[in-house]
Amino acid sequence: MDKKIKVSIIGSTGYVGAEVVHGFLFHPDVKIAHLTSQSFIGQKFSDIYPVYRGICDIELEGSSEEDIVRIAKDSDLVITALPHGVSSKMVPVIVENGARVIDHSGDFRYKNIETYTKSYKLDHPHPELLKDAVYGLPEFYRDQLKTTKITANPGCYPTCSLVALAPFLKKGLIKTDMIIIDATSGVTGAGRKSDLAYAYCEVDEAFKPYGAVGHRHTTEISEQCSFLAGDETGKSINVTFTPHLAPFKRGMVASIYVKPSDAFKAEGVTSEKINEVYSDFYKDEQFVRVLPGKNLPDVKFVNGSNYIDVNGMYDPDTDMIKLFSAQDNLGKGAALQAIQAFNAMFGLEEGTGLTNLVRGV
Amino acid sequence: MDKKIKVSIIGSTGYVGAEVVHGFLFHPDVKIAHLTSQSFIGQKFSDIYPVYRGICDIELEGSSEEDIVRIAKDSDLVITALPHGVSSKMVPVIVENGARVIDHSGDFRYKNIETYTKSYKLDHPHPELLKDAVYGLPEFYRDQLKTTKITANPGCYPTCSLVALAPFLKKGLIKTDMIIIDATSGVTGAGRKSDLAYAYCEVDEAFKPYGAVGHRHTTEISEQCSFLAGDETGKSINVTFTPHLAPFKRGMVASIYVKPSDAFKAEGVTSEKINEVYSDFYKDEQFVRVLPGKNLPDVKFVNGSNYIDVNGMYDPDTDMIKLFSAQDNLGKGAALQAIQAFNAMFGLEEGTGLTNLVRGV
Amino acid sequence: MDKKIKVSIIGSTGYVGAEVVHGFLFHPDVKIAHLTSQSFIGQKFSDIYPVYRGICDIELEGSSEEDIVRIAKDSDLVITALPHGVSSKMVPVIVENGARVIDHSGDFRYKNIETYTKSYKLDHPHPELLKDAVYGLPEFYRDQLKTTKITANPGCYPTCSLVALAPFLKKGLIKTDMIIIDATSGVTGAGRKSDLAYAYCEVDEAFKPYGAVGHRHTTEISEQCSFLAGDETGKSINVTFTPHLAPFKRGMVASIYVKPSDAFKAEGVTSEKINEVYSDFYKDEQFVRVLPGKNLPDVKFVNGSNYIDVNGMYDPDTDMIKLFSAQDNLGKGAALQAIQAFNAMFGLEEGTGLTNLVRGV
Amino acid sequence: MDKKIKVSIIGSTGYVGAEVVHGFLFHPDVKIAHLTSQSFIGQKFSDIYPVYRGICDIELEGSSEEDIVRIAKDSDLVITALPHGVSSKMVPVIVENGARVIDHSGDFRYKNIETYTKSYKLDHPHPELLKDAVYGLPEFYRDQLKTTKITANPGCYPTCSLVALAPFLKKGLIKTDMIIIDATSGVTGAGRKSDLAYAYCEVDEAFKPYGAVGHRHTTEISEQCSFLAGDETGKSINVTFTPHLAPFKRGMVASIYVKPSDAFKAEGVTSEKINEVYSDFYKDEQFVRVLPGKNLPDVKFVNGSNYIDVNGMYDPDTDMIKLFSAQDNLGKGAALQAIQAFNAMFGLEEGTGLTNLVRGV
Repeated sequence: MDKKIKVSIIGSTGYVGAEVVHGFLFHPDVKIAHLTSQSFIGQKFSDIYPVYRGICDIELEGSSEEDIVRIAKDSDLVITALPHGVSSKMVPVIVENGARVIDHSGDFRYKNIETYTKSYKLDHPHPELLKDAVYGLPEFYRDQLKTTKITANPGCYPTCSLVALAPFLKKGLIKTDMIIIDATSGVTGAGRKSDLAYAYCEVDEAFKPYGAVGHRHTTEISEQCSFLAGDETGKSINVTFTPHLAPFKRGMVASIYVKPSDAFKAEGVTSEKINEVYSDFYKDEQFVRVLPGKNLPDVKFVNGSNYIDVNGMYDPDTDMIKLFSAQDNLGKGAALQAIQAFNAMFGLEEGTGLTNLVRGV
Repeated sequence: MDKKIKVSIIGSTGYVGAEVVHGFLFHPDVKIAHLTSQSFIGQKFSDIYPVYRGICDIELEGSSEEDIVRIAKDSDLVITALPHGVSSKMVPVIVENGARVIDHSGDFRYKNIETYTKSYKLDHPHPELLKDAVYGLPEFYRDQLKTTKITANPGCYPTCSLVALAPFLKKGLIKTDMIIIDATSGVTGAGRKSDLAYAYCEVDEAFKPYGAVGHRHTTEISEQCSFLAGDETGKSINVTFTPHLAPFKRGMVASIYVKPSDAFKAEGVTSEKINEVYSDFYKDEQFVRVLPGKNLPDVKFVNGSNYIDVNGMYDPDTDMIKLFSAQDNLGKGAALQAIQAFNAMFGLEEGTGLTNLVRGV
Repeated sequence: MDKKIKVSIIGSTGYVGAEVVHGFLFHPDVKIAHLTSQSFIGQKFSDIYPVYRGICDIELEGSSEEDIVRIAKDSDLVITALPHGVSSKMVPVIVENGARVIDHSGDFRYKNIETYTKSYKLDHPHPELLKDAVYGLPEFYRDQLKTTKITANPGCYPTCSLVALAPFLKKGLIKTDMIIIDATSGVTGAGRKSDLAYAYCEVDEAFKPYGAVGHRHTTEISEQCSFLAGDETGKSINVTFTPHLAPFKRGMVASIYVKPSDAFKAEGVTSEKINEVYSDFYKDEQFVRVLPGKNLPDVKFVNGSNYIDVNGMYDPDTDMIKLFSAQDNLGKGAALQAIQAFNAMFGLEEGTGLTNLVRGV
Repeated sequence: MDKKIKVSIIGSTGYVGAEVVHGFLFHPDVKIAHLTSQSFIGQKFSDIYPVYRGICDIELEGSSEEDIVRIAKDSDLVITALPHGVSSKMVPVIVENGARVIDHSGDFRYKNIETYTKSYKLDHPHPELLKDAVYGLPEFYRDQLKTTKITANPGCYPTCSLVALAPFLKKGLIKTDMIIIDATSGVTGAGRKSDLAYAYCEVDEAFKPYGAVGHRHTTEISEQCSFLAGDETGKSINVTFTPHLAPFKRGMVASIYVKPSDAFKAEGVTSEKINEVYSDFYKDEQFVRVLPGKNLPDVKFVNGSNYIDVNGMYDPDTDMIKLFSAQDNLGKGAALQAIQAFNAMFGLEEGTGLTNLVRGV
């Protein structure tokens, strides 16, 4: 490609923003145009993340509406890592000024405005944009990504859950009235901030469930599950979801409990069949890895990467299907999935700039 | 008490054994008589655990059958932290030689011999002893503990699960055909051994499910759930159970998903009601702490101790009850529960030697 | 003891304060009278540290000067865990109102007021009190502790360094013109606060030197080294000191490099001799453990406790003596040493309430 | 480059070997020809490191002498990650069969055979090769690397120490009779093996010095320091060296204490001057980063990479220079430095395949 695509990142010094920078830094077709920060204007990106000293010394700009207009005019794509309620105001500004957007907030993830309102306790200033925004899970929506102006990057827990559930929902292999998702995240999921709750001495040697009722990702997962199951209203499925916080930096596991549908029961459910369903469904996906045999996912095997590993098992004693998935919450769960979506949006091979992002030891 | 009770520990240098030593070292009514080890005979306990230098310099003895006969004769109680299949042979020897026993293996935890055989793939040399052995969860079996010769110390996952479930099973408040237990343990749960799977660089920054179908604790939990639900055969309930391994040393959380029974539904299920059920059921228990309001358990708050914290919530959108419990897998989940059972067995106040075992910061 | 000693803690919810509470909770001769907090007035101590739910539910009071007067009148001892510059104002108030004090700040640790002023960049409002305050290292100052009104609890790095150096300084076995102390602390050393620098994701998998020139503990160590070497002015020795931050919660190691004095050289320096010097010097100290042979200290072996482990070696190739010590920075390095000093101040056996504070696994 | 260079790795499943694989996998000019393993012959590399599933599924071969002959004939370069004593036998075999070698053991790092013998307690079967082997620190030996058949990849501690010391040794700015290196390594430094000493529960929340007298890297550092100081015999300098083990996976810090030479004193030593010395000396080095001002190195900023960060300070109170460096022990300290040396050996730009290897969050 002769001319690089100009990408800017609004909110580049949070963990998600910084991981987006990381991914684009080494992307062969991209030139990072602007990086903004609320707290560190005028400093270099490498002052905040000294890892990048000599590698990314771009000066951080502000992110006022004026800044964003200017940046949008000078960018092909703007990535926004802003709080919900802020994105809903800024994303339309960016689009009006000629750039496409990938947004990391919850503001453009829903099709049902009332579900958004209930989940985020906010009035959306531009509900008319929801129908055009595309949910940025390339495995399911890559065709729509090609032309969208607004990509809503999925939540980390939703990505982890939906990739594990999709084949079974799409093929009608599970009952949809009880989907239990028990998930665990590393601490980067809480963002980069001064908060005693995430201080080293509070999180180390600790483990806990949180947000056990009413976590926002519950409705996001439910709406997308409904779509995957063929319900265009997005309202038929309500999942049970519990997140947990564990003492590691990056990574996420979803352990999912579902019952086989009558149709699947008639076929005869086995662990091998579950593995085959996955292998068949994801055979052309480069970032979804179906583990062989009884191998179960581990965050260790996906960290730093855009990979998501899945496998499942059948427990005949309780007629229960267990599905497991592991991803990097900042990788496939956030920043690197955004780059995958970017590749899809701009007609590039979807793995461009992503395939060598893994951490071995 | 004038005369100290003589306690010996067979297998004292594993993590469970060492934690038993820890508890008894500071127990006001106990004198540690003998400590054995398979690998470190002749060394001092403090050579293996230098924490105890100057505190517990007892010399480690062997644990051949001859040793065990001699030790049993010189002890009021023998704690065995031996592999299953070995305990079933040694425990009867101890009892014959005059000491009472608390055994940490799975060999005396079941009432149904066929469930044991299926779970452990072993023939039990003394199935006749199973009916007399008492399952060492003092909260449910303290009366039987007073007189038993053999106490089978419960598994860590079973203790964590059963304390959370008991009130609801005993009172018929949940459906028993679907009990899903998703649990996470610290690494001490794997024991003290040279095993690459538990090396620092393999476990740090990692998280994974394991033993997703057929983990032995599944049948132990199921049998005890059946008893708690009033089924004397111990066979009516089959739970769904998945353990996970997380990068911390001590601690365990169980996150449990159950449906309210029709009776409970008729009453009107709420999170407050669930909290009341717990508070009422455990109001006289000193080691079960019911967290107030929406507070959820955290391993951080129970580590080093015999406490187990519980709370629950109701999700009206999915008609699902979520129950949560946290304990120290080596504390209430193993060694310190054994000391609580010991206190019950020997007519001591149940908290003796246990109430100051907590870790603050 | 018939009547318990009434102890109050000012600043009880920081890590040091909480560890003081921990120690006194289980101290047989103490009744905790008052706990204060700046941020959590009106809440229970166990709301802030849920570990202590049901164990220490004392309500937190404020710490205005008025509060402190009232608390001092109702206490035999007040422990202050206040910032430097605040302690220097409040400690005299406490003493005037009838209580003795153990202070955790740097405000009463120096004898040379100009060294304090230079190190802390503060004018001391009560320099006249410095000469009466006793440096609370019981191993060296236990006689003075018996009668003092003000005990200045030593810094964590100074305790770790001084215990390792004392025998060699007191006996003239090392040159005093070059003492290099390279030390590493766990993260609790930074205190309990919302500070991005100590967030889990910033500290995990990280390790760094900090404060490489001018760390305040340098002058505190230097003054005390001078006293130990027999220089009553406290000004003859200047140590070289570098602290490091490592990803664990509690614990501290000092690795010290010194040259043997001519006198020691004349005797013939060996690793065995160094070990003997320690063993002889500390033979009556219950909390200083001299490791045998070539065993080196590890924070793992002292955590949660008031123990400090030491050993040393001689490197004939470079004529260098290496001294090593490990302690819990919150234990012997702060809160538990305060309890040891308290025992000395109130005529109790020095190990009272401390000997069972160790963490095995 | 039209034709890829064929590289094989002997001992590819240890942590160093696997990191070499990682680096070469994404190297634009390299084709990995063969991977061997002692324990996992016939399995795929990705069976051992599932991170690489779908990325590196190469089958692991054996490493008998016969295997090595065959592999050497089919490779342009062979990387050996073998134990010392084994390398000294196998490296000559590889060279005889036509491949160049980068060896990770200590067997070819010394010029003085007696120093090797004393340090490793081994007779070297091919002492005649030592003079031709090149010490693989490209910053100092890149010219010799161009033509060498045998590159001895430096030890991790030596690299970290020598890069920090070199400018001062080369320019005569420090006294050479006292060089104290206090260093700390992450746990990967101990290698990938089943060893209780490196089990998660033994290393987590622990920190200790080890090998305090006689660690092998001491003599390696000393010999190279002598060369850097201009002493061709390699025998004039003896450094004092103490390693520590800390609970993180990757990374290493060296904190070094030296005295300024009279010449440097005459100039006037300051922290700024020290920084200038570094900046000037390393101005053309892409992997040595001199931190500005008072910024000190942190392993967090170099992990996953071939970068090494340095800075120094002068303490006028004690006339002591402190030098600090941080690197990834597996990166610049081992595997990635080997790739940098490989680039030098094969006439490639030295940063090829290395510049995008950093870990941000």
